[in-house]
Amino acid sequence: MSEVRIAGVGLTPFGRMPDRTGRDLFAEAGLAALDDAGVAPPTVEHLFFGNFMGELAEHQGHQGPLMAEAVGVNAPATRLETACASSGVAVREAVKTVRNGEADVVLVGGMERMTNMGTAGATDGLSIAADDLYEIRAGMTFPGAYALMATAYFEEYGGSVEDLAHVAVKNHDNALPNEYAQFRNAITVEQALDAPRIADPLGLFDSCPISDGASAAVLVSEEFAEREGLDAAVSVTGSGQGGDKLALHDREWLARSPATEKAAEMAYDDAGIGPDDVDLAEVHDCFTIAEVLAIEALGFYDYGEGVGAARDGETTRDGRLPINVSGGLKAKGHPVGATGVAQIASLTKLLRGTHPRSSDLDDPRVGLAHNAGGTVASATVHVLEVER
Amino acid sequence: MSEVRIAGVGLTPFGRMPDRTGRDLFAEAGLAALDDAGVAPPTVEHLFFGNFMGELAEHQGHQGPLMAEAVGVNAPATRLETACASSGVAVREAVKTVRNGEADVVLVGGMERMTNMGTAGATDGLSIAADDLYEIRAGMTFPGAYALMATAYFEEYGGSVEDLAHVAVKNHDNALPNEYAQFRNAITVEQALDAPRIADPLGLFDSCPISDGASAAVLVSEEFAEREGLDAAVSVTGSGQGGDKLALHDREWLARSPATEKAAEMAYDDAGIGPDDVDLAEVHDCFTIAEVLAIEALGFYDYGEGVGAARDGETTRDGRLPINVSGGLKAKGHPVGATGVAQIASLTKLLRGTHPRSSDLDDPRVGLAHNAGGTVASATVHVLEVER
Repeated sequence: MSEVRIAGVGLTPFGRMPDRTGRDLFAEAGLAALDDAGVAPPTVEHLFFGNFMGELAEHQGHQGPLMAEAVGVNAPATRLETACASSGVAVREAVKTVRNGEADVVLVGGMERMTNMGTAGATDGLSIAADDLYEIRAGMTFPGAYALMATAYFEEYGGSVEDLAHVAVKNHDNALPNEYAQFRNAITVEQALDAPRIADPLGLFDSCPISDGASAAVLVSEEFAEREGLDAAVSVTGSGQGGDKLALHDREWLARSPATEKAAEMAYDDAGIGPDDVDLAEVHDCFTIAEVLAIEALGFYDYGEGVGAARDGETTRDGRLPINVSGGLKAKGHPVGATGVAQIASLTKLLRGTHPRSSDLDDPRVGLAHNAGGTVASATVHVLEVER
Repeated sequence: MSEVRIAGVGLTPFGRMPDRTGRDLFAEAGLAALDDAGVAPPTVEHLFFGNFMGELAEHQGHQGPLMAEAVGVNAPATRLETACASSGVAVREAVKTVRNGEADVVLVGGMERMTNMGTAGATDGLSIAADDLYEIRAGMTFPGAYALMATAYFEEYGGSVEDLAHVAVKNHDNALPNEYAQFRNAITVEQALDAPRIADPLGLFDSCPISDGASAAVLVSEEFAEREGLDAAVSVTGSGQGGDKLALHDREWLARSPATEKAAEMAYDDAGIGPDDVDLAEVHDCFTIAEVLAIEALGFYDYGEGVGAARDGETTRDGRLPINVSGGLKAKGHPVGATGVAQIASLTKLLRGTHPRSSDLDDPRVGLAHNAGGTVASATVHVLEVER
């Protein structure tokens, strides 16, 4: 099977851009990735595109061909949707397509419009990631669901809202020089604790924002990269996916994420590494508690041990395992369908040494991206490695 | 790469079932496929699921995990959406997953609810398969779009509404003994010609109905089939996908389908066959003109020659190349996200010799499935072959 190289990545800034259409956003990210790769659009053999709720946001389905045209790609295009992990699964199918030799050059990306829907519209749109019949009609919202998970975690393992505040403070601090981030303001633990509660025990700063934005990456076979002399030092060496029951009440665990565990196991096996080999990770921190659940399920911490990691400085940039150096969903923003590939874009820059935070890191060689959908009913994990 | 076998297939009846939920429909089809395969649900390693507009029909996204749970599958689940080709692309990713050795047992399926939306709601829902900004807001509907394509075809190549009526008559006749078909009534050319015009030159009988339904197939590696002693004589030997610009006005051709041409070329290459090797085909006849465009783009007829094929008895069951022996979308029904896999299910039964129409055929060995999205901005082609 062909080795998969990342030849280029591209992002729009994440934030409030209610007047920009989806095709406009993806054109910016996609063309930036193709330019970064030095690959002309007609060279692309397939587009895999992640979008969560374009049907509600733009009255638009069938976005694959629309987005291909927006970047000048004349190739088959497939839209994937797994809620907030939509572009994580797009990366997985793109990797398969290069690996099995069906294509040498694949564009993968994602996009979400949310702020044009208003807060109530976006909240309603996000709710379709959960079980409409048994959760949403009973009044559940995503802040409420993650608040249940945080409550269950505190009860099972301990930890406090102050521990979670440290996750938010770390991720806001990480985002400060990131020109693509939605929030570039430092916050304090006190500010986080004093903020209004959204769904007890979670407060305003425990939650990621509602965001617009797009992301893209050009994946190529090793043979193509060598033949074309591309600068593609970062490879995707591992890919995995896990699933769980959609509704929280059907799960065995509220304070653990088995779908992430399965995705990680598959990705580690695929890459031939273990959690101890990872130098930095971008994980799905839609809420601060989600970062805690992720770093435990990924095998970086035992159950119950992850909640203190930010507080103890272990996951800060100078810690033993920097987490969400981009700012994470919390501060970088979370345009849902774009997030999985945005993690890949951030990690690629961090591994190449071209990210504004690269100088803070100790030449990381192995990065991990973790993308989750719903209350982690879907999860993808990718392992990226750089040649030096 | 592993050879991909079809171990089992399952369908719900297609028709008006507005009170059945999506999970209920897919449970019936998925469990039927697993039962047909003799495979227990926990053996499944991945679900690929096609659905087009669950966001609008059921206020439900993230259907992968929901549908996995509905059939007792505890595995990662990915939803794919390419309008009316949604489960066609699901088959493609399922095939890749078995071929590259990532899984031995994959469930693939699709589902659509439409009649619960009412006619206006379903028409609105279907419209998101076209370009909302530049086509739908200008008043385009799908009957209108295919009417434009029919008009362009007649102008470019000739042919008549009577030729198209023969397509409808043939497909209604084919469906008569199909217990899963929505329409099991014979019609005459005169009836079709006398029916109200929906969008000139297309009349009521030129259009497929609005349908609810689900479909599923169990794909396994050849090694697994042999090890488990499964009855899996039908293989997927070729898979292809093509794309085109989403909006009709951006295309070079109204009277040809380049996306189908590309998908067919890829699938034929993959299977190592050509169009002359195909013994029967299920093609995407959402409108009668669509069957004509398909059989030309698939290489069965030269451009301009396909329009008379049904009239001349070449594509009837006793013709040289039977087309849509299941009844096609026209008479079998078209629950959008279910259609691609339903074609695979019908073909599998026809190749096995277990379909109610099998006795009318001359032991076909090679079947082709063609699934299209929108005005053929997306197309997939699969080649199925049976061992005898």
